[in-house]
Amino acid sequence: MVPFPHPWVDADVGPFEDAAVVHPPSGSSLVLTLDFITPVVDDPEAFGAIAAANALSDVYAMGGEPHVALAICGFPENRVPREILERVLRGARDKAAEAVCAIVGGHTIQDDEMKYGLSVVGTVDPRRVLTHTHARVGDKLVLTKPIGFGVAAQALKKDRLPATEVARLTSLMSTLNRAARDAALAAGARAATDVTGFGLLAHLRHLLLGSGVGARIFASQVPVLECAWALAREGILPGGSRRNLAYVTPHTQFDPRLDEATRLILADAQTSGGLLIAISPQGEQALLSELTRGATPARAVIGEVVAGDPGHIEVVA
Amino acid sequence: MVPFPHPWVDADVGPFEDAAVVHPPSGSSLVLTLDFITPVVDDPEAFGAIAAANALSDVYAMGGEPHVALAICGFPENRVPREILERVLRGARDKAAEAVCAIVGGHTIQDDEMKYGLSVVGTVDPRRVLTHTHARVGDKLVLTKPIGFGVAAQALKKDRLPATEVARLTSLMSTLNRAARDAALAAGARAATDVTGFGLLAHLRHLLLGSGVGARIFASQVPVLECAWALAREGILPGGSRRNLAYVTPHTQFDPRLDEATRLILADAQTSGGLLIAISPQGEQALLSELTRGATPARAVIGEVVAGDPGHIEVVA
Repeated sequence: MVPFPHPWVDADVGPFEDAAVVHPPSGSSLVLTLDFITPVVDDPEAFGAIAAANALSDVYAMGGEPHVALAICGFPENRVPREILERVLRGARDKAAEAVCAIVGGHTIQDDEMKYGLSVVGTVDPRRVLTHTHARVGDKLVLTKPIGFGVAAQALKKDRLPATEVARLTSLMSTLNRAARDAALAAGARAATDVTGFGLLAHLRHLLLGSGVGARIFASQVPVLECAWALAREGILPGGSRRNLAYVTPHTQFDPRLDEATRLILADAQTSGGLLIAISPQGEQALLSELTRGATPARAVIGEVVAGDPGHIEVVA
Repeated sequence: MVPFPHPWVDADVGPFEDAAVVHPPSGSSLVLTLDFITPVVDDPEAFGAIAAANALSDVYAMGGEPHVALAICGFPENRVPREILERVLRGARDKAAEAVCAIVGGHTIQDDEMKYGLSVVGTVDPRRVLTHTHARVGDKLVLTKPIGFGVAAQALKKDRLPATEVARLTSLMSTLNRAARDAALAAGARAATDVTGFGLLAHLRHLLLGSGVGARIFASQVPVLECAWALAREGILPGGSRRNLAYVTPHTQFDPRLDEATRLILADAQTSGGLLIAISPQGEQALLSELTRGATPARAVIGEVVAGDPGHIEVVA
């Protein structure tokens, strides 16, 4: 299932080979990551593309470049036509190819629910890894996609999302975090994470714990899908978002004016969310310019790193 | 979740990092593989160990050495106590540690049925890769574990397997194929595969197709779990084994004296089966000596590579 010749890939293996053999450039440091999800949209190609973008994102969040991947697939073969599986694989392959990443193998099992994801091998310059450990007091926190994908995807499942919003959500979730990674590296950032299943606040908390610092978030500066507000107030959101909020609440001081819906949106479980980048005040303008040049879906300064209890978050209204 | 210091692993990352960063020795060729399964035994540690051995096997089948792995996990958190998950992870971690392979990350999702597996990165000497493409006419075919694991596991599911047989099956499925790989390389083999979900005949067929040759198998020489015969005759076997037999039958000439149960056992879907090694007649004795020295569960010459239609198999009674 190699979608295009890739310089790493060994061609001298059979079509049913037990494993792929690849030859990375000498001296490469590798980024290894793995993620898989259940469908978040109805369109099979779009689901494949989103699942691929979501898995590739972990490589970008480390400042790395994806190269080869193995597919993880669960498929209800007794219930769903095989053509659907082929369309999911095609969507994933094309999205990986956009990232110049070859899918060189994988494993599919019979499953009650469709699942797809990738185990990705990338390279990274060890002097420029983006980690959780390098956020410093005074850094600005910049987010490169809006949040609220979990709320919107839940509405989509209940047939409550207008077609234009479905298209926008699909486009946002399939957008690679490559341009955001490029901007972070160009601006000299050393700390980042991607916003996925644990939601903005919990992923931020992990970053802060890794660096031994706290943060102040300005809720009004966080970019949110417009449609998410009314839906969240109606209680339409994934169970994961409620669990995320319960997880961060003991470590988070919310402005009392922030209602439950806003808190839930800040904790909303994302699929294929943006990068959250910590950047020094000196690098802030360069980062915002680079993000603009890369046309990332958002480029919002949502808060700052502060001294205090490691992992503590203050959310200002 | 790094079980022990591993020289590849970068320690300068936080505990919730998005991906692992590893530094393979300069100039390494890598083997990449991924496999995951649903429970085949009741004991959680044993399931973890078997799932790990099963995934690591694909690296050994290529002549490689596993180094680091990411876990793939599905867990029914609403139905199964979390302690069970921890025991599965412990069993897998200890088995990977036996293979000197560090589990450096992974992904767990809520799932209706427990699943576990690994995405493994190993190294291989590119001059000594074991592939599907190097079997030659005249080679002997050697199997390093018995077959019938699928039949026995099905009986276990139906509470029809005596405790001594459960213990034997568990031990066989958790045995690493490392000693078999060592023996194959020491004897100068260039072609091998491992016998897993497609069963002996289909995995053999893939090897033969890769090399453009046929094979003759001596059914009486194939090592089979004693308990599997009666069970298979009763029709106790996984659906996969029937599908495997249907898949190979058009390309296989069975001796008419071989009954349906024998054919099904030769196609039985294995979890963590042995290596099937093609070795030149000159290397045969060395291979058998090395397998004896490595105490592999079986070391049976079950047939030979012949000229003929690529992928064609003759099964002699």
